[in-house]
Amino acid sequence: MKTTSVKGTNDYLPNEAEVRDYLQSKILDVYKKNGFEHIITPAVEDIENLDKSEGGDNLNLIFKILKRGDKLTKALEAGVKKDNDLVDMGLRYDLTLPLSRYFANNKDKLPLPMKCIQMDRVYRAERPQKGRLREFTQCDIDIIGSESSDSEVELIMTTTEALFAIGMKNFRVKINDRRLLRAVLKKLGFADEQLDSVCITFDKLDKIGLEGVVAELTEKEFDVSAVENFKNFLEKKEFTLESLKNMLDDPEPALSIEHIINTVNALNGGKFDLVFDLSLVRGQGYYTGTVFEVESIDFKGAIAGGGRYDNLIGKFLNQSIPAVGFSIGFERIYSILMDHGIQIPEAKKKVAVMYDEGEVLAAIQAADKLRAEGFTASIYVKPKKVGKFLSRLQDHGFDGSFFVGRDEEVSYFE
Amino acid sequence: MKTTSVKGTNDYLPNEAEVRDYLQSKILDVYKKNGFEHIITPAVEDIENLDKSEGGDNLNLIFKILKRGDKLTKALEAGVKKDNDLVDMGLRYDLTLPLSRYFANNKDKLPLPMKCIQMDRVYRAERPQKGRLREFTQCDIDIIGSESSDSEVELIMTTTEALFAIGMKNFRVKINDRRLLRAVLKKLGFADEQLDSVCITFDKLDKIGLEGVVAELTEKEFDVSAVENFKNFLEKKEFTLESLKNMLDDPEPALSIEHIINTVNALNGGKFDLVFDLSLVRGQGYYTGTVFEVESIDFKGAIAGGGRYDNLIGKFLNQSIPAVGFSIGFERIYSILMDHGIQIPEAKKKVAVMYDEGEVLAAIQAADKLRAEGFTASIYVKPKKVGKFLSRLQDHGFDGSFFVGRDEEVSYFE
Repeated sequence: MKTTSVKGTNDYLPNEAEVRDYLQSKILDVYKKNGFEHIITPAVEDIENLDKSEGGDNLNLIFKILKRGDKLTKALEAGVKKDNDLVDMGLRYDLTLPLSRYFANNKDKLPLPMKCIQMDRVYRAERPQKGRLREFTQCDIDIIGSESSDSEVELIMTTTEALFAIGMKNFRVKINDRRLLRAVLKKLGFADEQLDSVCITFDKLDKIGLEGVVAELTEKEFDVSAVENFKNFLEKKEFTLESLKNMLDDPEPALSIEHIINTVNALNGGKFDLVFDLSLVRGQGYYTGTVFEVESIDFKGAIAGGGRYDNLIGKFLNQSIPAVGFSIGFERIYSILMDHGIQIPEAKKKVAVMYDEGEVLAAIQAADKLRAEGFTASIYVKPKKVGKFLSRLQDHGFDGSFFVGRDEEVSYFE
Repeated sequence: MKTTSVKGTNDYLPNEAEVRDYLQSKILDVYKKNGFEHIITPAVEDIENLDKSEGGDNLNLIFKILKRGDKLTKALEAGVKKDNDLVDMGLRYDLTLPLSRYFANNKDKLPLPMKCIQMDRVYRAERPQKGRLREFTQCDIDIIGSESSDSEVELIMTTTEALFAIGMKNFRVKINDRRLLRAVLKKLGFADEQLDSVCITFDKLDKIGLEGVVAELTEKEFDVSAVENFKNFLEKKEFTLESLKNMLDDPEPALSIEHIINTVNALNGGKFDLVFDLSLVRGQGYYTGTVFEVESIDFKGAIAGGGRYDNLIGKFLNQSIPAVGFSIGFERIYSILMDHGIQIPEAKKKVAVMYDEGEVLAAIQAADKLRAEGFTASIYVKPKKVGKFLSRLQDHGFDGSFFVGRDEEVSYFE
């Protein structure tokens, strides 16, 4: 029998589970205080819902659950043509599809705008050799039913407050609007159907630089004058909102971003920068307007991201329902904090209450007294090698010991 | 597209999720304070591990996950003989199999005895028409690596403290020892291989009474004199530990129960009764010694249960590792509390901060002030029908409103 966990999944040791609990509970506290409400959906969804969802590449990564009983027998007898003949549900690959189903299922019981929290596990059948997780936790807030960019302000203020609460202090928030980027690209001569592809290349500006972007666009055989215009535009660095407002026919997206930036900067007490970044694309295909990302300055890379996706939530209802969400990169932050030796600020001191066989009553009474004083106390019968045992507990995170019948107070480990 | 959740699973509305979060966090706090440590395992396990586990009937209820890519193609080409040819993992049906795998995988990093908490979802492919849940939460504490019945005392004290903490006050704890029951039955003339079957019938004493038990044993064609002996024994009600100590050759199980009862009664301040009940069997086949159960007096039926299972945890290691666990019936308690309208004692007051369009900055500042005062505050642009909107929020659990630019303090709803 295999003792390791399934490839791409983790067993979490007590110290690891403690950090995960701490992060989740801190984040949840901040979210709730700010008026977001926790909702819970099952980890399994109907296979048709998953397959018809807008998950892009993730649709190839769905763990599918075998039919059972007669249904399975029938499917096998009928001859299997595609794997979906064999399955009736699957594990969710994100929390957005469940959210849109949930909203359709429960909308009569939910006030609009609905501000909700999801913090839960998702599953992706990644190839294990890539080192990617196949089970991991996502941590999302969403505002559904409001077109106002005030929602973006709320999400940015709440998410950054949560990041500060878990000790991620040195970051900046980048913001863009897909509509703005697309308008610029059209103005420069690209065709509607080319925009997605241009965006994918432009997204790499940070990594491959201006020359790299131009080379890739040329390679993709886009119109030479459009690529040339784009190059000139990038060289002139006409990226300010001000210049874009003048350049574009519809100033609305630029005004919306301006509103968000001004409001957040008035509120955040200089604790972080919110900057306009026309090159911010964000991977998901379903974003329709604002996109944003939190970039850690200390640890490089994105630690949170999100955007507006007005055409997704209403899919189950055949309506257009405005929605915008912000997701904290829970696993990324967890691994950063573990690598850097996180100390949980409010953790209780852990004491081993040691007793002689037959003295469990006195031991529990002593432990209860320590618990009432705010300690975490665990009772242990004295083993033969007490010193070795205590040293093992110390390695395991205990702070001290209390010997029943001998000690008046906790002896802290050195 | 189907908007309901998969049959046998639930979407939890915000008020429901709030209760679940509250229960889990309260229980976790009590467990941790008492020295138990949270561990986390994946929801998916290797299919062979699941299939070879001692899950009894639950083995027929495993959700199996379809192989992917080449492995699936090969399996289909080779001709499917049994469903396991098509799958490589499954969803766990309990937390005990994962615990024994976890222990084998991580034992070098864990001090013994190991006291651990698991609180997580499990999955069973129940027939939905039975009204049973296919996804539900289990809530276990276990002590691994100690043969001492002090561990039973710890588990009973910790579990009952957790039950009190979540408002389950009126209950009694029943205790028995499988070894005791088996010794009695052998003494009365049943053969070794009959004991399990007799126990299953005896377990029904509460429901079918003495006559029912005798009838069923007769129907099962057990030795007439053994059944007669058993009947006499039950009629004389020779159930006291004292009488059993005298009757049986090995007094150890009776002494162990006596120790547990005496210690718990000395500690519990009369807050609940711990009573010996020779008819307590508990369903699981893997229990080897003590079994216990918490019976709610207000709500009838079991709200927690557990026992000692010394042959399970070491299975992955080919060793015998003593272990004892206690599980709170999370879903049962959740549904009792929801049915009876639970009030969460420490819940923050929820305030809707209402503002005019364009005034989001002032609204967030007002909301932040309320949050600093201990409120949960959510900002909303005033809709056309403010009264209707607020009344909807009140139904949804809000406690009051605060109009930006008008109010000095929160107006509570009537």
